[in-house]
Amino acid sequence: MYSAENKIIDAHWPRYTENSTIDKEKRLKLCYLKYKFEGTINDNKPILNLIFSHATGMNKSIWKYYIKRLKKLAFMKDDYPFVIGSMITVDHVQHGDSGVLNKDNLGTEFNWTDGARDVIKVVMEERSNDDAFKKGNNILIGHSFGGFLSVYAAFLEPLLFQDIITIEPVIYGRHSDPSAAPPPEGYKTMGNSGLLSALARGIKDEFDSKEEAVEWLRRTSFFSPFESELLEYFISDEVIQRPDGKWTTKISKEQHLTCYKGYDSSVPMGMSSVQFIKNRVLHVVGGSATWNPPETTNFLIKNLENSDRIIVPNGTHTVPEEQPDDVLKIIKSRLTETGFSLQEPIALTAKPKL
Amino acid sequence: MYSAENKIIDAHWPRYTENSTIDKEKRLKLCYLKYKFEGTINDNKPILNLIFSHATGMNKSIWKYYIKRLKKLAFMKDDYPFVIGSMITVDHVQHGDSGVLNKDNLGTEFNWTDGARDVIKVVMEERSNDDAFKKGNNILIGHSFGGFLSVYAAFLEPLLFQDIITIEPVIYGRHSDPSAAPPPEGYKTMGNSGLLSALARGIKDEFDSKEEAVEWLRRTSFFSPFESELLEYFISDEVIQRPDGKWTTKISKEQHLTCYKGYDSSVPMGMSSVQFIKNRVLHVVGGSATWNPPETTNFLIKNLENSDRIIVPNGTHTVPEEQPDDVLKIIKSRLTETGFSLQEPIALTAKPKL
Repeated sequence: MYSAENKIIDAHWPRYTENSTIDKEKRLKLCYLKYKFEGTINDNKPILNLIFSHATGMNKSIWKYYIKRLKKLAFMKDDYPFVIGSMITVDHVQHGDSGVLNKDNLGTEFNWTDGARDVIKVVMEERSNDDAFKKGNNILIGHSFGGFLSVYAAFLEPLLFQDIITIEPVIYGRHSDPSAAPPPEGYKTMGNSGLLSALARGIKDEFDSKEEAVEWLRRTSFFSPFESELLEYFISDEVIQRPDGKWTTKISKEQHLTCYKGYDSSVPMGMSSVQFIKNRVLHVVGGSATWNPPETTNFLIKNLENSDRIIVPNGTHTVPEEQPDDVLKIIKSRLTETGFSLQEPIALTAKPKL
Repeated sequence: MYSAENKIIDAHWPRYTENSTIDKEKRLKLCYLKYKFEGTINDNKPILNLIFSHATGMNKSIWKYYIKRLKKLAFMKDDYPFVIGSMITVDHVQHGDSGVLNKDNLGTEFNWTDGARDVIKVVMEERSNDDAFKKGNNILIGHSFGGFLSVYAAFLEPLLFQDIITIEPVIYGRHSDPSAAPPPEGYKTMGNSGLLSALARGIKDEFDSKEEAVEWLRRTSFFSPFESELLEYFISDEVIQRPDGKWTTKISKEQHLTCYKGYDSSVPMGMSSVQFIKNRVLHVVGGSATWNPPETTNFLIKNLENSDRIIVPNGTHTVPEEQPDDVLKIIKSRLTETGFSLQEPIALTAKPKL
């Protein structure tokens, strides 16, 4: 009942800094996979389109685990107060298939707000070509770096998005709290904290055989604790052979680190944006996660006007990949809530008088 | 040597709030006048394109005084280290010709950041259709509300703009300083300060004859202190006859106040954005101006990384309309400086190492 189509569009242009690309005028590409509901939607339930954004180093296929299960809701649509129209999984510019297409044009800097502009570009593209998409409501779902993108996209274009589910978003840094001036003790950036070098030691992008690459991803990499079915989807979309015969990941080590390094310039912008966001936001937190400073969750709940928080017991920072069933349950329940709220007659907005 | 062309394009979509328009899907229009250099540019001087944004209640034609004099520089190009490619004067969505086209679709709210998106839309439109524009460097020049737009446009798309001249920009409010929490004493919005009602009493948009309208604008309105040639350009682009025979200003009183009222939602966003702007900004201040809180100027100089300030002696908040020769002199001198800096060989950017 859902068709699947690989799409390639131009990424947002211009990028945020001169060093974002090698050639300033050349357009980066954005690859995404669109699953589109092909049945007839003849009831009055709201149509929801889901746009998924992966974390640093991952790719669109980590969401396949979710897509497979969410597709089934189409057969049970009487049980739910919504219909899923399209589901879109994006490979962000240096990741997955986009990373392969862009490899000769990616620069040494990546400001994450460009990722938010790319998400907006995808939605605008779909709206201009797909009537069903135009009628639908857009729900952004993003993890970690992808959680940042989802929130910042709502800051940039609030009317495009009817709900945001942000899972362990990286959008708060103790050292970059704009309300704390001068910087508190321990002020540091990812660049000078030693974290980037530690990450660099854990990343590998050259292998002699496919088996070696797969084994490394499965057993040694940051990704090894992922739920096994989900991990296999990720790996099968990530390992490719280079022209010289060697095997590699679609994201290069250099671009993987460039994306991490974007933290320093991006997180303060994210922190400063949240006070202006009035969209509905669900903030999903891993109960045992330590990647984000512990203040993150209160900061978001306090500053996002219309937000809720839900904690996944025992969840780590990669909870959507390690405990996908728990996160899927949360997503389904949030979509149900969103479906009901969109079915309510629109309140007669009291137009403010001058 | 310069052609003049009236252009109409779709304004940025989506707008910032549901109440920005009556029909959410309908596109607002944006009218602008483009003066394009038609001679051959065969030296190696940088081409500068100037994009002018007017203040609340004004229209594109207040810049005619400037355009007329800046055009003459084309005959004296040996004296200047730049060539002016195009000059664009915009009627923002509720103003001038745009206001007339949009009158049945404008809503009850206007967030000024939409004006910044519209400026970006104009530049992107010109870049896609005009090769000379593509090669040029874009200089934003904006007054008051238009000064806000120019600064915020640089926050949204830093690489599109090579210089910003912001004259008495409204981008700081004592009551909305995000670093001061809780709000300091005297916390108030334009809506509750009484200022909006006072402004409402000073605005009129219905007249029995053309002469009555012109006389009111010339002698009674906020605009009466404008330099006389400049005032006549403004008036001749502003007074029109309605289908019912009455005469009116192109901006309606309601939309004039809606734009003022946008202050409350927009200024905090502007204040929060400036810390991230690395573009060159020249901040022109009226030496006797009282519209902005006196802290505005220090706030901008401190927070805009690459900014300069210049004070016009005896200037009020409407200094570009009251003392246009003084402001013109500042603009010419800044363009000269920009021309020289763009002629310098581009420094070999040290690409940051991971």
